[in-house]
Amino acid sequence: MKKVSIKDVAHEAGVSVTTVSHILNHNEKRFSKETITKVLNAKETLGYFPNKNAQQLRGSKIKLIGVLLPSLTNPFFSTIMQSMDQNKPDDVDLFFLTTTGKELESNIKQLVERGMDGLIIGRLIENPEALDTYLKKRNVPYVVLDQSEDHGFTDIIRTDEEAGGQLAAEHLIRLGHRSLAIIAPHQMMANMKDRVQGFITYCRAHHLSEPLFMQTELSKAGGASIVPAILESNATAVFAINDEMAIGIMRGLADRGLSVPADLSVVGYDDIDFASYMIPSLTTVAQPMEDIGALALTLIMKKIQSPDSNPEKVELPNKLVIRETTRQVN
Amino acid sequence: MKKVSIKDVAHEAGVSVTTVSHILNHNEKRFSKETITKVLNAKETLGYFPNKNAQQLRGSKIKLIGVLLPSLTNPFFSTIMQSMDQNKPDDVDLFFLTTTGKELESNIKQLVERGMDGLIIGRLIENPEALDTYLKKRNVPYVVLDQSEDHGFTDIIRTDEEAGGQLAAEHLIRLGHRSLAIIAPHQMMANMKDRVQGFITYCRAHHLSEPLFMQTELSKAGGASIVPAILESNATAVFAINDEMAIGIMRGLADRGLSVPADLSVVGYDDIDFASYMIPSLTTVAQPMEDIGALALTLIMKKIQSPDSNPEKVELPNKLVIRETTRQVN
Repeated sequence: MKKVSIKDVAHEAGVSVTTVSHILNHNEKRFSKETITKVLNAKETLGYFPNKNAQQLRGSKIKLIGVLLPSLTNPFFSTIMQSMDQNKPDDVDLFFLTTTGKELESNIKQLVERGMDGLIIGRLIENPEALDTYLKKRNVPYVVLDQSEDHGFTDIIRTDEEAGGQLAAEHLIRLGHRSLAIIAPHQMMANMKDRVQGFITYCRAHHLSEPLFMQTELSKAGGASIVPAILESNATAVFAINDEMAIGIMRGLADRGLSVPADLSVVGYDDIDFASYMIPSLTTVAQPMEDIGALALTLIMKKIQSPDSNPEKVELPNKLVIRETTRQVN
Repeated sequence: MKKVSIKDVAHEAGVSVTTVSHILNHNEKRFSKETITKVLNAKETLGYFPNKNAQQLRGSKIKLIGVLLPSLTNPFFSTIMQSMDQNKPDDVDLFFLTTTGKELESNIKQLVERGMDGLIIGRLIENPEALDTYLKKRNVPYVVLDQSEDHGFTDIIRTDEEAGGQLAAEHLIRLGHRSLAIIAPHQMMANMKDRVQGFITYCRAHHLSEPLFMQTELSKAGGASIVPAILESNATAVFAINDEMAIGIMRGLADRGLSVPADLSVVGYDDIDFASYMIPSLTTVAQPMEDIGALALTLIMKKIQSPDSNPEKVELPNKLVIRETTRQVN
């Protein structure tokens, strides 16, 4: 749907654009009451008003990008934020907002009303079609990160999560591990399901017994608290769905006088900045977080310049980083 | 300077507030051209217009708080952000923005123009008087975090940094360490200078030789890269100005086959969430980051309710958390 412009109002009222502009900006002194009434009626009929604030706020020299994320403290998202911050041109400012699934729609509305020139949405969109209609109507371009499905409405950046899970399985199996466990959160995001699926698919393809599947909180504390269950199992290696859980598992083992990788091999996921600083340093599937941040910014700036360009779908590769938490068994 | 209100415009024009409201909101149909002109003239004379967008955006049911911070990835600030996020009432949304010292003024202006109901400023304000005038004129309450000096303009939350530095020195000296080094960043923020001062003051009061003062980057990598210099000195213990540097030092020692605390005792500062998960777990001076976040939110909400309340100054205590990275020497 094409956006109503000041030209449309002028056409409807049968007056010039300048006249409409003066009247809507309170400089109506030199116009007759009849003209004023015609313009105001045309504005009402066409629904020109609602977005006026946002329009006035937009279009300044500084471009404002609203970034919606599920969490600010998860190092995965904070690295993406930092990468955006470091890569932003001088004339761009970024507004970061956390949002729950429930709040996403109202948070987006708030950002739009406050004159954002574009949005980067890093959370699953429950109603992508309605959102797309809402944003296109208001001429606000947006880019989606890490979303489960590509709906084809706009640019999307993903990583190949299934391949990531496969890399972890392949590494552990090559090291001789046959009893594997997956440590996953209670609440699985769609991309995490893909990781798990990749891991399991690889095990099946190599005729191994099904890996154990254990669930806990998505945090370091969650990793530490699942350690007793891991020790009761016969697993010789675990694949933690993110690095924070892997770091928690290492700590939980240390608390019991056990160590990694002698007593258990551990593979994480993400390669957060702490992973290489752990002692032992963490073997993990590295996501290109900095590339995701930089690319999201590039895409949204392109989208602001050319709002009608075709949606781009970018899938970035993950890679295995072998460090000190995994060892060969016989 | 008192803000111009719609009442002032009505008074100046000699009409009712309702009339002014109708005319300024484009419902002027039923008024004479004379009345319209009087109202518009009064508006111009008093300068009522400039802040209209922000006023329209403000005052909705959802309160919007803009939070300005120097970094989103430093775990100190991300814990504060998370605490604010977790403690916010349902009708509050937070906009986070990173800002450099240079950009602070323009970033604040942007947030104000976008209708923020209040600001939390977590960065040194270079020109506090001008900022205070700007914000008070626009009726935007604000709270300042962690700033070096209290200018008395508004609420401020600090921690007792000098006492924090003293706690670190006291702990190491009690453990028998006599050769101490301070690991500090090249760019010292005011609160870091206070930490260092507290540490040095305590050493002097106990007639110890002056601690070595080494500078590197304020990061984990900076900590790792200063390790050769530490090893060349005769220091048996180091006080790192934040936990990230301490964690880098631990990693730099591990890379050389050395370990903490056998080869070096290490004390950090902040107690970021990774500190207790390190192996060995990090002894550190804990800052009440979650309290800072929660309190900042409480104060700004109070300030929005009662803008004319007296400025509050809150100084929160730091405390030493003894874990595994420090040991007794003889």
